[in-house]
Amino acid sequence: MSSAGLDSLDFSKLNGLVTVVVQDHDSGEVLMVAFANEEAVRRTLAERKAYFWSRSRRKLWRKGEESGNEMEVVKVLVDCDGDALLYLVRPKGPACHTGNRTCFFRELEPTDPSAPSGARRPT
Amino acid sequence: MSSAGLDSLDFSKLNGLVTVVVQDHDSGEVLMVAFANEEAVRRTLAERKAYFWSRSRRKLWRKGEESGNEMEVVKVLVDCDGDALLYLVRPKGPACHTGNRTCFFRELEPTDPSAPSGARRPT
Repeated sequence: MSSAGLDSLDFSKLNGLVTVVVQDHDSGEVLMVAFANEEAVRRTLAERKAYFWSRSRRKLWRKGEESGNEMEVVKVLVDCDGDALLYLVRPKGPACHTGNRTCFFRELEPTDPSAPSGARRPT
Repeated sequence: MSSAGLDSLDFSKLNGLVTVVVQDHDSGEVLMVAFANEEAVRRTLAERKAYFWSRSRRKLWRKGEESGNEMEVVKVLVDCDGDALLYLVRPKGPACHTGNRTCFFRELEPTDPSAPSGARRPT
């Protein structure tokens, strides 16, 4: 695998942020999606803990700073055009604020999931 | 795993788009990150091929429509707050326009990757 520096990141497409995908290093499970500004990326690389930028709170946050569910960052990968990162992590607890191991705990269905099966086209 | 309908998606945070992470269903490798508007999501669910919204070209695109490297979509997961999707796919070829299997083929390093090891603080 080749390497890239911070100067390869493109923060221009998302108003100073890059998209971050968080994947469990050991299980391969995708845990969450968040965003990072340059400081969040620098601190992640320096401390090997997952840092993000919270768009709702408009502040830097370290995953687990409140919940205790920190993420040790084993490796950070960058995509071809420099606007997305992949944090490969070892989580200390659930990634999701709901208590689920991953934020992706629901399957998207094309129809209303509350509708009884076969009831879409009543005769 | 529970299920969710299209009405659980929140397109408001990214101007009508949600973030999409694409993961190889069989290997677990994260292949790429892109965005989808509601039509892209509907078509993905209906046709089981990966559709996205291209922000640069401002149009709907089906992965592989030019390269031939389509992605069969096995499953679509949605995250806790409805603003990110995970497409679990079987790709017919490289995900990346560079020809790499995944767009995440570079490791991010904190320092200039061209600098010799240990040369950061010359004495």
